[in-house]
Amino acid sequence: MGENICKKVSSRMVPYRDVKITEGFWKKWQDAAATDTIPAIYEQFSKTGRFNALTHKWRANEPNKPHIFYDSDAAKWIEGAAYSLYFKPCDETAGRIEALIDLIETGITPEGYFNSYYQTVEPHERWTRRENHELYCAGHLIEAAVAYYEATGKRRFLDLMIRYAEYIYKIFVADKSAAFMTPGHEEIELALMRLWQCTGDRKWLDLSLHFINLRGTDPAEHCFNHWFSPGYAQDQAPVAEQATAEGHVVRFGYLFSAVADAARETGDIKLLEACRRVWRDVTGKKMYVTGGVGNMKHGEAFGPAYFLPNYEAYTETCASIALAFLGRRLSEIDPAGEYADNCELQFFNGALAGLSLDGRCFFYENPLSFRPSDQHFFNANRASGRPAQRVEVFSCSCCPPNILRMITAAGEWMYSSGGNDGKNGLPVIYVHQYAQSEACVVLAGGAAGTGVTLTQETKYPWDGKIMITVGAKGAFSAVIALRAPGWCDSPKVNFDAEVTDGYLYIAREWKNGDQIILDLPMDVRELEANPYVSQDAGRVALSRGPLIYCVEGADNGDRLEDLLITKKASFEAIWDENLLGGVCKLRFTALRRKPFDGLYRKWAPEYEEVTAIAIPYYAWGNREEGEMAVWLRKSV
Amino acid sequence: MGENICKKVSSRMVPYRDVKITEGFWKKWQDAAATDTIPAIYEQFSKTGRFNALTHKWRANEPNKPHIFYDSDAAKWIEGAAYSLYFKPCDETAGRIEALIDLIETGITPEGYFNSYYQTVEPHERWTRRENHELYCAGHLIEAAVAYYEATGKRRFLDLMIRYAEYIYKIFVADKSAAFMTPGHEEIELALMRLWQCTGDRKWLDLSLHFINLRGTDPAEHCFNHWFSPGYAQDQAPVAEQATAEGHVVRFGYLFSAVADAARETGDIKLLEACRRVWRDVTGKKMYVTGGVGNMKHGEAFGPAYFLPNYEAYTETCASIALAFLGRRLSEIDPAGEYADNCELQFFNGALAGLSLDGRCFFYENPLSFRPSDQHFFNANRASGRPAQRVEVFSCSCCPPNILRMITAAGEWMYSSGGNDGKNGLPVIYVHQYAQSEACVVLAGGAAGTGVTLTQETKYPWDGKIMITVGAKGAFSAVIALRAPGWCDSPKVNFDAEVTDGYLYIAREWKNGDQIILDLPMDVRELEANPYVSQDAGRVALSRGPLIYCVEGADNGDRLEDLLITKKASFEAIWDENLLGGVCKLRFTALRRKPFDGLYRKWAPEYEEVTAIAIPYYAWGNREEGEMAVWLRKSV
Repeated sequence: MGENICKKVSSRMVPYRDVKITEGFWKKWQDAAATDTIPAIYEQFSKTGRFNALTHKWRANEPNKPHIFYDSDAAKWIEGAAYSLYFKPCDETAGRIEALIDLIETGITPEGYFNSYYQTVEPHERWTRRENHELYCAGHLIEAAVAYYEATGKRRFLDLMIRYAEYIYKIFVADKSAAFMTPGHEEIELALMRLWQCTGDRKWLDLSLHFINLRGTDPAEHCFNHWFSPGYAQDQAPVAEQATAEGHVVRFGYLFSAVADAARETGDIKLLEACRRVWRDVTGKKMYVTGGVGNMKHGEAFGPAYFLPNYEAYTETCASIALAFLGRRLSEIDPAGEYADNCELQFFNGALAGLSLDGRCFFYENPLSFRPSDQHFFNANRASGRPAQRVEVFSCSCCPPNILRMITAAGEWMYSSGGNDGKNGLPVIYVHQYAQSEACVVLAGGAAGTGVTLTQETKYPWDGKIMITVGAKGAFSAVIALRAPGWCDSPKVNFDAEVTDGYLYIAREWKNGDQIILDLPMDVRELEANPYVSQDAGRVALSRGPLIYCVEGADNGDRLEDLLITKKASFEAIWDENLLGGVCKLRFTALRRKPFDGLYRKWAPEYEEVTAIAIPYYAWGNREEGEMAVWLRKSV
Repeated sequence: MGENICKKVSSRMVPYRDVKITEGFWKKWQDAAATDTIPAIYEQFSKTGRFNALTHKWRANEPNKPHIFYDSDAAKWIEGAAYSLYFKPCDETAGRIEALIDLIETGITPEGYFNSYYQTVEPHERWTRRENHELYCAGHLIEAAVAYYEATGKRRFLDLMIRYAEYIYKIFVADKSAAFMTPGHEEIELALMRLWQCTGDRKWLDLSLHFINLRGTDPAEHCFNHWFSPGYAQDQAPVAEQATAEGHVVRFGYLFSAVADAARETGDIKLLEACRRVWRDVTGKKMYVTGGVGNMKHGEAFGPAYFLPNYEAYTETCASIALAFLGRRLSEIDPAGEYADNCELQFFNGALAGLSLDGRCFFYENPLSFRPSDQHFFNANRASGRPAQRVEVFSCSCCPPNILRMITAAGEWMYSSGGNDGKNGLPVIYVHQYAQSEACVVLAGGAAGTGVTLTQETKYPWDGKIMITVGAKGAFSAVIALRAPGWCDSPKVNFDAEVTDGYLYIAREWKNGDQIILDLPMDVRELEANPYVSQDAGRVALSRGPLIYCVEGADNGDRLEDLLITKKASFEAIWDENLLGGVCKLRFTALRRKPFDGLYRKWAPEYEEVTAIAIPYYAWGNREEGEMAVWLRKSV
């Protein structure tokens, strides 16, 4: 099996329905999603009128006026809940979803239109304002309908949304009667890709390509107001020509996820190269070490290259998720470890930090440094404030159901199955992510239901040992490619393996009961940022395995930005069952300057030695309010 | 001469008219003020309708609508120009001022009111809106009238403004007919103190005390809108009870300058203690190393204690000037070196940075770190942008004439003369600031015109040697107290001197021709910030003498925040006649990390050695646009 061939074996993700997470880290989060996150979001969205909006009974001057994005919130909750129902049936949740579908069925117009804002607040303004999330809401409803159908087999919602998609096709392709050509907030492109994959009807692929290929082609189709440049909504150039990641990060991530799908399905190399360019721009110049993206509160957007202020970081939870969506699709096309590495980074850090340990509260923004005393400054200096702790709901509450759907469908990120290598006809199974789980993978070319099973046993992310047991009715020849994470210097596996682009390729005849023992030693790593990132100069971030760590006031007192890690510091990784739901914490000796009277003096630092504790970044902010810092000073 | 007694000798500043700056650093700035700054501001204020507003001929829908603060801009230009005229007569400037006074004489109402905004834009809204700078403009007009009278002996403008003050007294004290009791933007208090000192009419002291003592006593007299807390305009408590420096920094500085005057004149110890408390709060917790104050763009205000972000610093030029006003007054009451040290810090750094080397362009904000690539982020994330380089005029253009009046009256900050020490009857002359100059100081108790002369010869701030020659008709016994700056570890003087609270007290019988040789060695100092200032952790600022230094891209390339000063770095101070109008630059060896591919990697810093050049902070931004940094990494 040659390197060049293996690199080019593209693959498709194994659906979450075929990957049951059975124990461990993600099982706990999936359990919390079922028992806490799903009902908690439902309750908050009920209180704030998001579900009631679907009745279309709101009238002028009543409270809880439907917002232009309310349908998307409801839809994403349905989507996230649907994934959960597949392995964890729940009558209450199922009943709630059915009741919402009843409302959608009642409210949809004969021509197929459904939008709670436009059907109540501005009934005569349909398709007039590009910025008003109309196609965005439609996209999320379509995603929810696909998810609900795939989870339950019930077609009612899906059929309603196919009617809606037909209507959108009529408006935007056949009649061209809308006041704009492409959506202000991308999402419909991605949703139509899913609708096409679900139904097999190529019309939806074509409609998605329609929106993708028109984007950035007409200067009249520009940004919304003087505050935003065309790049805000990725209108700065035709998509295939875009060279840098610009503007609103979630819009960017959703758009390019669909672009990657489009590239894969149409073989359009220009679209693929655009994806690769913007990916490199983000991950090489505009991403926090946690995976967080978007440092600009203004426009919820990418900032300049290498400008990554930690305290001011915007790094929306949804932005991490959106970037992971793109990474997952790129890893299907190009099996290079950096893509799945990034998905892992988002799962364990940038995205997961958006959810409280009890599964009920949320961060919209995920800064890499926090000081309670500075919140006043921070909030006053911005157009709107940032809460100091996770909260139950936001006025713009896109993040809560987004992290929900990421967690409930977590299995979908683990495996992909690829066509043969072109030389000796071996199919490839990629193992992208590690979690205790049972998967059934259909080999490329194999019929559904004839798959092999892969059972992972591991304490990942706390321990790097992973045992994968192969189950099959008989022997089969295949390549199993295990991701060797970028954070691991010396991955070991008990079979001959060729390392290519972040994967360990094992080509052999597999027998039922074969056990792959993968060992990914989890040393504590001190990371440095490129010197162009001025905010991190002289500092290191700590990581262990896929987890980025931080220090918190609860363990270390205050003045965390001043903690100094000595040159030859050693770090002890300690499992603490009672800390933050059970985490592996890091203990190390550090120095802290002693305060002195006054503000400034001749340089004469006096240090005291302290025992410092670092915790996983995702778990910060779950105790009393206090300081937090990811980047710590390092002695040189 | 006992320490306790000397400490308590309060003094009064010697007027700028008696202190002629004859050569050197400030002479160059005063010359530039006369030839460039005064005409440049005049031209810009003319173009923008600020002077034309005084005609009261603006009518609805015409361009250049008078702004509520336009009168104050015109007044401050008159004030700054008046000081300059005293030593540098100029027919053109004098004529321009007289023409403006003509307009004021024409426009003032029979009852004595003058306000270009209210007399044209909202003629029926006089004294209805506390936030609209009405008394602020009156205050600046009064200050200008006093300054013009004192510089030229011409009473016309002063008499007009006395009529205005009488009218204000009627409205706010006799009739109480205004919709508010105290001004939204303080300034009138300070101006009335000057009017009282100029005219000897105690009514103006009383009116000033009226405004001071009513402030913060009525909750109805609060902030303007929901964005601002009462502290924004120092309304959070009665002035005498205020414990921390709050809100809009310029308002704060102007108010407490008047409060210090009030404390001195009335002996009100509670007011004095309030001054001391807020001074400690500012200088001990809320001031940048450059003297800059106010880190909050929002409200142009003080932020939380120890929160001093360098890139985001607001640090308005006017705020440094306003704090220096307070410091000068406190140094009159309590001759402790920290006050005049602070005035010096502002003069050479925080305030002076607001003016270009050619005297024609201005910064409103004075950050301590700058990166051109980050301006987009910075400006987008704030309510309004910040220019990358000094500009000719701002829509709110308070800073240009403020730095003008500080420079043209620079002599007024140098000396004060104090009453006897209470033991042996010796009067005290304080020498607060150093500059080549000729002063005539009237000894306490002496009649005007009978003063001694003090001639300073020095290359300050480039060199710390100062020779002061005493001139007198006969011998006289007095204490001459020389400030020993806080930045100087080992001041030396050629007479026996007692060091108390930052001054070298020399008590003796002085004879004509006596020469004091003061030597203030100017070592390069590396300063550290209190560990509570997280933004400066692990960094040092360089200073030499009274000057704070910075590094700029023009000398050092980019990635300045990553420059590393080694543990035992040595600094060479080099006079460079051709650099930035002539400066003493600092040369030192530093390390800079080499960039690497990608954003993050395992900590393995690679350094290259570079020769770095630091320049005085005030001179930054006078070459091509590039990076700038005050706080540099320091190896530990």
